[in-house]
Amino acid sequence: MTVERHLIAQAVAERRKETIAFLQRLVQEDSIRGNEAGAQAVIIEKCRKLGMELDIWEIDRTEVESHPFFRCDREQFTGNPNVVGVLKGTGGGKSLILNGHIDVVPAGDRKDWSADPYSGKVENGRLYGRGSTDMKGGTASLLLAIEAVQSLGVPLKGSVIFQSVIEEESGGAGTLAALKRGYVADGAIIPEPTNMKIFPKQQGSMWFRLKVKGKSAHGGTRYEGVSAIDNAVTVIQRLHELERDRNDRVDDPLYENIPIPLPINIGKISSGEWPSSVPDVAIIEGRIGVGPWEDMESVEEELIEALGDLKKIDEWFDQHPVEIEWFGGRWQPGSLEPGHPLIQTLSEEFQKVCAVRPVIEASPWGTDGGILSKGAGIPVAVFGPGTTELAHDADESIELEHLFKSAEILAGFIVEWCNQPV
Amino acid sequence: MTVERHLIAQAVAERRKETIAFLQRLVQEDSIRGNEAGAQAVIIEKCRKLGMELDIWEIDRTEVESHPFFRCDREQFTGNPNVVGVLKGTGGGKSLILNGHIDVVPAGDRKDWSADPYSGKVENGRLYGRGSTDMKGGTASLLLAIEAVQSLGVPLKGSVIFQSVIEEESGGAGTLAALKRGYVADGAIIPEPTNMKIFPKQQGSMWFRLKVKGKSAHGGTRYEGVSAIDNAVTVIQRLHELERDRNDRVDDPLYENIPIPLPINIGKISSGEWPSSVPDVAIIEGRIGVGPWEDMESVEEELIEALGDLKKIDEWFDQHPVEIEWFGGRWQPGSLEPGHPLIQTLSEEFQKVCAVRPVIEASPWGTDGGILSKGAGIPVAVFGPGTTELAHDADESIELEHLFKSAEILAGFIVEWCNQPV
Repeated sequence: MTVERHLIAQAVAERRKETIAFLQRLVQEDSIRGNEAGAQAVIIEKCRKLGMELDIWEIDRTEVESHPFFRCDREQFTGNPNVVGVLKGTGGGKSLILNGHIDVVPAGDRKDWSADPYSGKVENGRLYGRGSTDMKGGTASLLLAIEAVQSLGVPLKGSVIFQSVIEEESGGAGTLAALKRGYVADGAIIPEPTNMKIFPKQQGSMWFRLKVKGKSAHGGTRYEGVSAIDNAVTVIQRLHELERDRNDRVDDPLYENIPIPLPINIGKISSGEWPSSVPDVAIIEGRIGVGPWEDMESVEEELIEALGDLKKIDEWFDQHPVEIEWFGGRWQPGSLEPGHPLIQTLSEEFQKVCAVRPVIEASPWGTDGGILSKGAGIPVAVFGPGTTELAHDADESIELEHLFKSAEILAGFIVEWCNQPV
Repeated sequence: MTVERHLIAQAVAERRKETIAFLQRLVQEDSIRGNEAGAQAVIIEKCRKLGMELDIWEIDRTEVESHPFFRCDREQFTGNPNVVGVLKGTGGGKSLILNGHIDVVPAGDRKDWSADPYSGKVENGRLYGRGSTDMKGGTASLLLAIEAVQSLGVPLKGSVIFQSVIEEESGGAGTLAALKRGYVADGAIIPEPTNMKIFPKQQGSMWFRLKVKGKSAHGGTRYEGVSAIDNAVTVIQRLHELERDRNDRVDDPLYENIPIPLPINIGKISSGEWPSSVPDVAIIEGRIGVGPWEDMESVEEELIEALGDLKKIDEWFDQHPVEIEWFGGRWQPGSLEPGHPLIQTLSEEFQKVCAVRPVIEASPWGTDGGILSKGAGIPVAVFGPGTTELAHDADESIELEHLFKSAEILAGFIVEWCNQPV
């Protein structure tokens, strides 16, 4: 089954205005964690219009919490559903999951934004607002692709399973719940902001919390205490060494152009209560990247061992070892061979639209893709119109031209993939 | 005027039980900043019993805030008074201020305490609880000394001005208010925890708050940001260097046995909001010691210059200089020649009770003494029964035997000093 690519281009072009308005509505719904309902309602309305078979459900924690990948400190999902919309295939073709997350990270300090973080304003071809690039723009491109295919009346043998999930930014409980509900497929595309690059491999990541001890004393006789802040500096330096060691070992060519393929990010520190007291405890929180070829447990071990080594340079750490807690988010890494048909088909469609070969790289961050691939063996490609640099930052925005281009590519891909024999 | 020293010893000994009960009541009143009223009520009751002329007043900020030594971020003093109790002399003798602060620092993590931080429990000759050593034990020794002298009916030519002030731990607004109210004298003793050493010189100190900047980014692409935590580590290392440089210059023999005469204590750090984001600002709070021979302004300059130097090692600091704020507490240094009659008289009394010469040293921390000496030229000695090592720490306690010994010494001193001709 084929379809003239210029017809797809035309079907996408005809829906530009409508898609911009749709993405504006999505961005204007502030769907931070616990507040996803409004944005999901916009999604549901669109899915209904596309004639999808809808499955809207609130996650039942007891049904997912026994899964080894489950990492979630949220107790309450009432009122904020997961949404899946299915277009059933005629049979015999490859099925496809198209997955986007609806949750966004907090807007941060509003003073850093040039306009309301939820304005959705369009200027110079970009649409602005929290979530525009990560990843409501990607989701809009998925739905535009589906709509374009539908408008052309192209029959699909394999089913298309569109997913709008919650909780991606906090560890993936939404995608995990969809998987546990039985949604599997022969391939999956996640349009996270890759800046139109194709990522067959994704870095996983885990959060850690370190408790570093000291001994309090009056600041005027600080030599009678042991500063938890000074000890935290030692710990931070050890983490930097560990990061260097781990990255020195990376030889995957997909990481060639990434300065730090497996970063250890120290995101938070807090210590002390009084300027003139020696602090007796410091809490460090951070994130360690997990290579596509690694498993979580071995990376845990490596971090534990690195911090255990501290006792060799300072006997304080022998008596007071750093306490490690693995808390909050945890994203499984994902790994697909660049030669896999999913990547090949997507690359070919990219070339048809863009006239050049796509950049094939590894993502420096985790996505829900790891849950699909490690959890159910589903081949996953991450490919989307947004840009990582703008995600999680003030003045987040998306280049609309990229959104339309990726919809064209995805529409072509849907036609090809879903009509390939299983 | 003299009095047999064994009579003083006896008068003190007879009041041991009563003094322990008094100190227990004082410690059981949690007099952290803003909550000093309960402990002051215990003091007031005692002063009334001793027949002192009482002056109890709430500090009026507008009356003290124009003073160059005023450093206080507290707006509200209602209900938490300063207390001064005067025993008028018969005339012709030297007057004496006996100054103790009633405020205590917060208890910190209760889990670090073996018992309730405000228990006041007595075990193996020690009384436990926040404030026991810093410095309610010292205050109890002052009041016991006064009571012993009174009980013996010894007439005093000079007046004794007992002060129980608030705000010492936060910069001395209580002692400053007493000074502005007109309380001056020919000498002053402050029984801060010197472990029975006599300190003619006291280190001053200032608090600083540093704002260190970074640039936020997603933790997975942390190389696109600049970590405010990493920059804070650079700042901390620079502060350690500055501390080394400053202490290399100290040659006062009174500091001979003090490992770090002029410490720079980094008491607090806080940075970041999310484990997988690069933090864009870090706040450091600390305390820098000011030598008895130094003035505040030159030390300010030195710290500003040291942090300004950072631009030479990292151009980030050229574009984003560390912002420095001098906030909260500020303790003037104090300096009295070790040969001054106040020190000599106190040393002699010490020898009469303890049979050995006292250790004369410089205090490594600031007291309200600097306000009295720099603010009004009052000769000040710091001498008390507690121990610095235990101040501000968990399981703070005081050796009761030391409290009684110092009360004996102070009683003898009061008799000698207040009967010396002006």
